Amino acid sequence: MNSNYTVGVLGGGQLGRMLVEAAHNLNIKVAILDSENAPAKQINLIANDVHVTGSFANASDVRKLAANADVITYEIEHVDTKVLEELEEETPYIPNTQWKRIQPSWQTVRRIQDKYAQKQHLAQHGIPTADSKAVGTTSPHGLRDIALELGGLPIMLKARTQAYDGRGNYPVMALSDIEPALQALGDRPLYAERWAPFRKELAVMVVKTQQEAGGNWEESTLAYPAVETIHEDSICKLVYAPPRETSIKIQNQARELARKAVSSFPGTGVFGVELFLLENDTLLINEIAPRPHNSGHYTIEACHMSQYEAHLRAVLPNLAGTIKPRATELTVNAACMLNILGGPAPDSHELLVNAALNTPGAKLHIYGKGPGKPGRKMGHITMTGSSHSEIEQLMHPLVVVADAIRAHRSSTATSDSDISSTAADLLRRNPTPPVKPLLAVVMGSDTDLATLRPGLELLDKIPIPYLVTITSAHRTPQHMLNFGKAAASRGFKAIVAAAGGAAHLPGMMASETTVPVIGCPVKASSMDGLDSLFAIVQMPRGIPVATVGIANSTNAILLAARIIGTSEPRVAEWLANHLQQMDDENMAKAARLEDQGWKDYKKLDQPMPLSFK
Amino acid sequence: MNSNYTVGVLGGGQLGRMLVEAAHNLNIKVAILDSENAPAKQINLIANDVHVTGSFANASDVRKLAANADVITYEIEHVDTKVLEELEEETPYIPNTQWKRIQPSWQTVRRIQDKYAQKQHLAQHGIPTADSKAVGTTSPHGLRDIALELGGLPIMLKARTQAYDGRGNYPVMALSDIEPALQALGDRPLYAERWAPFRKELAVMVVKTQQEAGGNWEESTLAYPAVETIHEDSICKLVYAPPRETSIKIQNQARELARKAVSSFPGTGVFGVELFLLENDTLLINEIAPRPHNSGHYTIEACHMSQYEAHLRAVLPNLAGTIKPRATELTVNAACMLNILGGPAPDSHELLVNAALNTPGAKLHIYGKGPGKPGRKMGHITMTGSSHSEIEQLMHPLVVVADAIRAHRSSTATSDSDISSTAADLLRRNPTPPVKPLLAVVMGSDTDLATLRPGLELLDKIPIPYLVTITSAHRTPQHMLNFGKAAASRGFKAIVAAAGGAAHLPGMMASETTVPVIGCPVKASSMDGLDSLFAIVQMPRGIPVATVGIANSTNAILLAARIIGTSEPRVAEWLANHLQQMDDENMAKAARLEDQGWKDYKKLDQPMPLSFK
Repeated sequence: MNSNYTVGVLGGGQLGRMLVEAAHNLNIKVAILDSENAPAKQINLIANDVHVTGSFANASDVRKLAANADVITYEIEHVDTKVLEELEEETPYIPNTQWKRIQPSWQTVRRIQDKYAQKQHLAQHGIPTADSKAVGTTSPHGLRDIALELGGLPIMLKARTQAYDGRGNYPVMALSDIEPALQALGDRPLYAERWAPFRKELAVMVVKTQQEAGGNWEESTLAYPAVETIHEDSICKLVYAPPRETSIKIQNQARELARKAVSSFPGTGVFGVELFLLENDTLLINEIAPRPHNSGHYTIEACHMSQYEAHLRAVLPNLAGTIKPRATELTVNAACMLNILGGPAPDSHELLVNAALNTPGAKLHIYGKGPGKPGRKMGHITMTGSSHSEIEQLMHPLVVVADAIRAHRSSTATSDSDISSTAADLLRRNPTPPVKPLLAVVMGSDTDLATLRPGLELLDKIPIPYLVTITSAHRTPQHMLNFGKAAASRGFKAIVAAAGGAAHLPGMMASETTVPVIGCPVKASSMDGLDSLFAIVQMPRGIPVATVGIANSTNAILLAARIIGTSEPRVAEWLANHLQQMDDENMAKAARLEDQGWKDYKKLDQPMPLSFK
Repeated sequence: MNSNYTVGVLGGGQLGRMLVEAAHNLNIKVAILDSENAPAKQINLIANDVHVTGSFANASDVRKLAANADVITYEIEHVDTKVLEELEEETPYIPNTQWKRIQPSWQTVRRIQDKYAQKQHLAQHGIPTADSKAVGTTSPHGLRDIALELGGLPIMLKARTQAYDGRGNYPVMALSDIEPALQALGDRPLYAERWAPFRKELAVMVVKTQQEAGGNWEESTLAYPAVETIHEDSICKLVYAPPRETSIKIQNQARELARKAVSSFPGTGVFGVELFLLENDTLLINEIAPRPHNSGHYTIEACHMSQYEAHLRAVLPNLAGTIKPRATELTVNAACMLNILGGPAPDSHELLVNAALNTPGAKLHIYGKGPGKPGRKMGHITMTGSSHSEIEQLMHPLVVVADAIRAHRSSTATSDSDISSTAADLLRRNPTPPVKPLLAVVMGSDTDLATLRPGLELLDKIPIPYLVTITSAHRTPQHMLNFGKAAASRGFKAIVAAAGGAAHLPGMMASETTVPVIGCPVKASSMDGLDSLFAIVQMPRGIPVATVGIANSTNAILLAARIIGTSEPRVAEWLANHLQQMDDENMAKAARLEDQGWKDYKKLDQPMPLSFK
């Protein structure tokens, strides 16, 4: 980069700190406006000459930052937009460019600051969002009338401004909630929202960029993967990328909706978009943040480019055009993020920090915020892995510690050992779930178990978690179809299906899933298994079944292992050793036969044990 | 962490900078001893009160750092070990602990500083390394005698001390090189090494820790994956993790050897171990660095815990026991690291920086070093992906830019456009290699092509790179076996093999690989394909072939796609759409039949096109 712009950031909390981390790798100078020892300043000595001590809500401090920076952006939206408007009037562009100095636009921030204006904006742009009404009244009757206009109770009563991490939301479930709700929030401008009966909350980070093309500025947006967010006390607790048990179709719809929403706001940068997935599988946008977002922390470890680097690039004229689609893709199969929130004592959250330090693969981010306060965001933990099931093995005990800290959050007399014993108790009642199986072995009837037994005995020695069950194409057809339909989302990478006679199970299972199905023909009462073989192998074009020899369950299992081995190196290694061992065994037999002669040769009673390191 | 130790680092270059990045996430304070604006200091305001301006080779500066820190460690081994020895005599342990203040030990560093002493140390510990002899002479005759003792020319003449990035190595290929070699290096203590005819250079990062167990300190070592390193001008250029075309067996041997070598040195921390893989597949240790290492940069993006975080944890008494095996594992299938080295002008390397900024997924690390000098390490680029083939598509054009900068490195009159035109020329002569196929479709004879054609026509629509070729079990048996043996390391995830009659190809292929083999029976001259089916499906226990219906190449290809789809989400998505489309087509036919009646129903000439977004 020959042109070195300084980026000024309003706010220097954890989001600002992670922006600075990203900036260091690109050698971009970042000036921070916040208090003296703010998290973002601690890691930024090289910009010490341009940091400003003060507040992003104070006009003269914002002016000082603007004097030290080429571009102004945000890590928090509760900023003074009036001074930004004035600054833009005075000097709209970076000198000698057509690039706006304030990114995203102060207009975007002003509209988003007022949550009701944000909702109206989205509705005007044809983006599905919960119906809402401004609340101009402080009378319970007035609010009741508004609730009726929104289809009746329950409704959400929300503060229009200065609302974050749940401060400013009040669910009005019954008429008796109306007065307390107005009392809790009544000192601020309010609005009411139709209740959204969601079954999951999703979120999508979107990068909005602009680049010069043929003399014009062309805008484009790029969506990160959809993620699942879990909130508690209206604060983000957990993020799963990708969302658990959510079809790719819905994930893509969420990303498209998020892109459409962000496209409607002027200016560049990353935006956090929160969505509701309703019971009927439709999506609504909940709200938008014009900056990096808690739901995008996972991008640091799990995507090619973090949301922080994407934000920095997007707000700079020389880099906004360099963000390409691959950058926002996942580099891992699955990631999970857990927030570290303050507990009852200033250091209660250290219990979770210590648990994470002792958890292999837990990536810690501590924000350098000093003493903890109840619910304060002190850090976060990211874990990546080959599946959510793998991650959960390690993450669940940490989630339990977070739950225990929360359980004691408001009791000031709590000791660390109280929290630890609550955590132990929670873990006893809700133990870590077992690893999810990668292989399903199904049979039409328990009479097929005898045929499968040699294969299953071998499977026990292969490092593959598995499930063995019964489902019949003829006796439980609906159950069989459902099993097939769910196979991919349950994480199976192969299914072995054994059946005999008019053997329909493997083919029917294969019709309902894209997971490879291996058919093992069982010898039935007649035809020596030929009927089963033909019924399994002679599938119509379009639905393949991987067929093995009659009654050869060993090969069915080994074929499943070969399939799983294409993505699980430990399994591939086991198979390579197994091939080698078969080779060695046969060579040993040959040597023994040559040595003893065919007259005295004795077959060994036991096959050599399959023992690999 | 309730106990907050300050870590003092001798040196503040790029390795120190990346140590500081890791420290910020754990809230560990790091004091740096180096010049005023050293890279590691730029990103570390919070420790500004404990940084020391000076040199790691100056005793009084080292003493100043020791006064500011609880533990002393290194990012470079060319430090004053005498003052460290004194410091240890004065205060060996962190107060109230049995933890040595200097990690790893100054004895380790002193031994490693002298490369000949390092070699002797390794030999004494039974670790294979190239034979070497101290060179006590400056006479050509003396050196010739030493060469004879080492088995004759060629030999490597090396400086014992102050040697890094190739400064201090001189290959003596012929007698005529002896005098120039002595002239080039003769001002320093030297040693000579037997020539190691390596076919590849490998490296392994090893973490050495210590933890209290029952009142004793127990040491343990943990190896990161083996990587392949490419050196040019004796400077590290590229790192591939895992190494390309290297068996898991050799990788594991390299890791074991590296662990054994590091175990022999006192103290904790990460160590970089460089190895030679000889032509005969044996391994020698080349040299060891008692600190984070260029060959371990990839761990930042590609492993659960970076080498930098591992080093910090390992040198601290409260964290050394927290590094568990999963931490050093890869989180991605493949990673590649390219160094950004200075070119002829102070900003020549910016050409590579700009190319990387425009390469999707290229993760930049710029070190903040100021103007470039020829060969100076200015930054690095890491790329991760699902295979080296995928990464190479994007990385190759960057490697070409690096090559062009190198080609002009010593010509001071070079302009950026000279370098760019050299890069364009290099790329023309050595274009980016095509994506490696994931699927091989093989047939015994070209007569089988007719059977495979419908499947291949479908394959063309599926997002899978593939290879179609001929290899016969009977006509080219050796070629067929070799193809099978190499299949896994070539990156194939499935093989479709078509054969007819005494159809041996699928089964023989499956005997030589752990890659899933799909057998497609071709109808031969008699028995209507039954002979082919039985010859393919009725394999002995131990070697599975996934058999599809007679002449059903469509199902063979779809089965391969299902197998590849278990690890390639784009393929799984295509298959889900394909299943849905078959469903839709059949429902449409049913509607048309009901609508037109069976008498007027016409079969459509063309099947509906397979068109997915």
